[in-house]
Amino acid sequence: MIDIQIPFEQLKDTLTTILINYGLEEERARRCALLFAKADLDGVRSHGVNRFFLFLDFIQKGLVHPDKEPVILSQLGMFERWDGQSGVGNLNADFAMKRAIDLSKEFGISCVTLQNTNHWMRGGNFGWQAVEAGCIGICFTNTIPNMPAWGGSEPKIGNNPLVIGIPRTRGPVVLDMAFSQFAYGKLSIAKDKGEQMQFDAGFDEMGNLTKDPETVLKNHLALPIGLWKGSGLSFVLDLLAAVLSGGNASFEVGESGFETGVSQVFLCFDPTKLELTEWIETKSDALIDDLKSSSTFGDKSVRYPGENTVEIRNTNLRNGVPVAEKLWSDLQNELKS
Amino acid sequence: MIDIQIPFEQLKDTLTTILINYGLEEERARRCALLFAKADLDGVRSHGVNRFFLFLDFIQKGLVHPDKEPVILSQLGMFERWDGQSGVGNLNADFAMKRAIDLSKEFGISCVTLQNTNHWMRGGNFGWQAVEAGCIGICFTNTIPNMPAWGGSEPKIGNNPLVIGIPRTRGPVVLDMAFSQFAYGKLSIAKDKGEQMQFDAGFDEMGNLTKDPETVLKNHLALPIGLWKGSGLSFVLDLLAAVLSGGNASFEVGESGFETGVSQVFLCFDPTKLELTEWIETKSDALIDDLKSSSTFGDKSVRYPGENTVEIRNTNLRNGVPVAEKLWSDLQNELKS
Repeated sequence: MIDIQIPFEQLKDTLTTILINYGLEEERARRCALLFAKADLDGVRSHGVNRFFLFLDFIQKGLVHPDKEPVILSQLGMFERWDGQSGVGNLNADFAMKRAIDLSKEFGISCVTLQNTNHWMRGGNFGWQAVEAGCIGICFTNTIPNMPAWGGSEPKIGNNPLVIGIPRTRGPVVLDMAFSQFAYGKLSIAKDKGEQMQFDAGFDEMGNLTKDPETVLKNHLALPIGLWKGSGLSFVLDLLAAVLSGGNASFEVGESGFETGVSQVFLCFDPTKLELTEWIETKSDALIDDLKSSSTFGDKSVRYPGENTVEIRNTNLRNGVPVAEKLWSDLQNELKS
Repeated sequence: MIDIQIPFEQLKDTLTTILINYGLEEERARRCALLFAKADLDGVRSHGVNRFFLFLDFIQKGLVHPDKEPVILSQLGMFERWDGQSGVGNLNADFAMKRAIDLSKEFGISCVTLQNTNHWMRGGNFGWQAVEAGCIGICFTNTIPNMPAWGGSEPKIGNNPLVIGIPRTRGPVVLDMAFSQFAYGKLSIAKDKGEQMQFDAGFDEMGNLTKDPETVLKNHLALPIGLWKGSGLSFVLDLLAAVLSGGNASFEVGESGFETGVSQVFLCFDPTKLELTEWIETKSDALIDDLKSSSTFGDKSVRYPGENTVEIRNTNLRNGVPVAEKLWSDLQNELKS
């Protein structure tokens, strides 16, 4: 795969134009394009422009409604439930985190939930959104069932990505993780290279752990992190998402055969309103200093979640955002069509 | 190890009497004893009476102050910060979850944090406390550093137990997990039996994964669940606990050499106040029915977190609570002393 480097503005503008052609109103197209491009800008290429054509396909299939915006279902002070109306996943999530930020500035803590929404693409965007507003943000989503429950021999639970962002002047902490040990995308790449995964990646047809990506891709039995532990935690996050939003659980998401109609939860804490500003910097600096002082094996280094993001972002702003040449050429063709 | 079965009331009364001798006021002694005994009643023997003498030792060392109760540090509607005053860990946590329950019934959502508290013993107790009050409860604690960060060759992060409880008439869901793949207690038991762990348990002196409990016990490099993922998540929970409470982070807890002065967070959601009662039963029933319908490998069964607890509890209420004969005899001796 050959990469070319595209100026960030040009990447955004290209995506914006295409999105307008697909029925997004201009301002929404601009924001949606920004969220796609930001993933690549920050080095999370698995969940950015790489998924753009899949997203366009979902619009064409009628699974994503480009013109629908969230409508409120219920409201109680710091808690709001919204119906995402099968709208654009990243725009809906961006909207919900913005509501959570605003409510936390009023009440200190807030919770906004979305039912009937679509894949938010890169979850980390919404962690960054919270920290850039000076807030602690926690959000999670359910997914199509893509992992076995512990002991199970068929996919039953989602890998339900979880994002936690904590603001910090010297570089925020933003964790963005799913509960599968490896994303199916990473397994595909390894399989195409004929490589085994470095660590256990899933189960074989006998229920034994395996590092073989081909086996896991075939039987869809990706490994929940921590075996029974991640299986339990991912199940509970799915249940929380369904109960707090009144929306679909993972197994219901799976019934259509497409990952659509997911449920999401957005929590915010405003450190200013909660009078925590005294610690937010000192504690995070102290923890990170201690973490970074860890002795390591060989030439490994210890990093905190989100540590490299700002550096990657700045490099890509300077040099252009790496995009696969083939993908860029597909985008150009789409522009012309 | 030979077990004998002690009637639950007798077990509680025995612990209560000893606790009074150690300086706990009677009602507090009764509640503290209940919390210890409940762990064994529910089958969580690793975090119940098994730790009682360690707890008494902490009182004797002056690390746990038996007469100290939490004092409030700051209050903002649904958010309260408390100083645990180095008091009794399980009583402090029980108090904090009770505050969180009460606040959630008033505001819908609540967050109560504790700084300067002690080990809560069995975290699951506080998940059960929330669900028995009809609330969704989420709590987590930091610990002494007992796992390496990803890439690190020394213990730097805590295994920071996390508890999530969701009420349900047909049996609540209560997840109670730490972020190490295996507790050090389980590694000790396996080592004493000369057994290897069934799955990777930590790192050897070269940084390779190992199933050998002796190696992991020696170098204190227990495996975070999901490798880099659990390492990141556990670090973030520690940071949240420190920031939201203003208390110690894991590395500060570790500085004294004893696990004391930890920080804890208790979140509650009241489904009634939040108008979620429509879904709390239907969604959890549907998710659990689907989970239980999973095909399995061989004769394995798929369970949801907390599934077996009520059955174990009822059996132990009927037949007596299993306690190691030696431990019971030590308790009798302590009673006489």
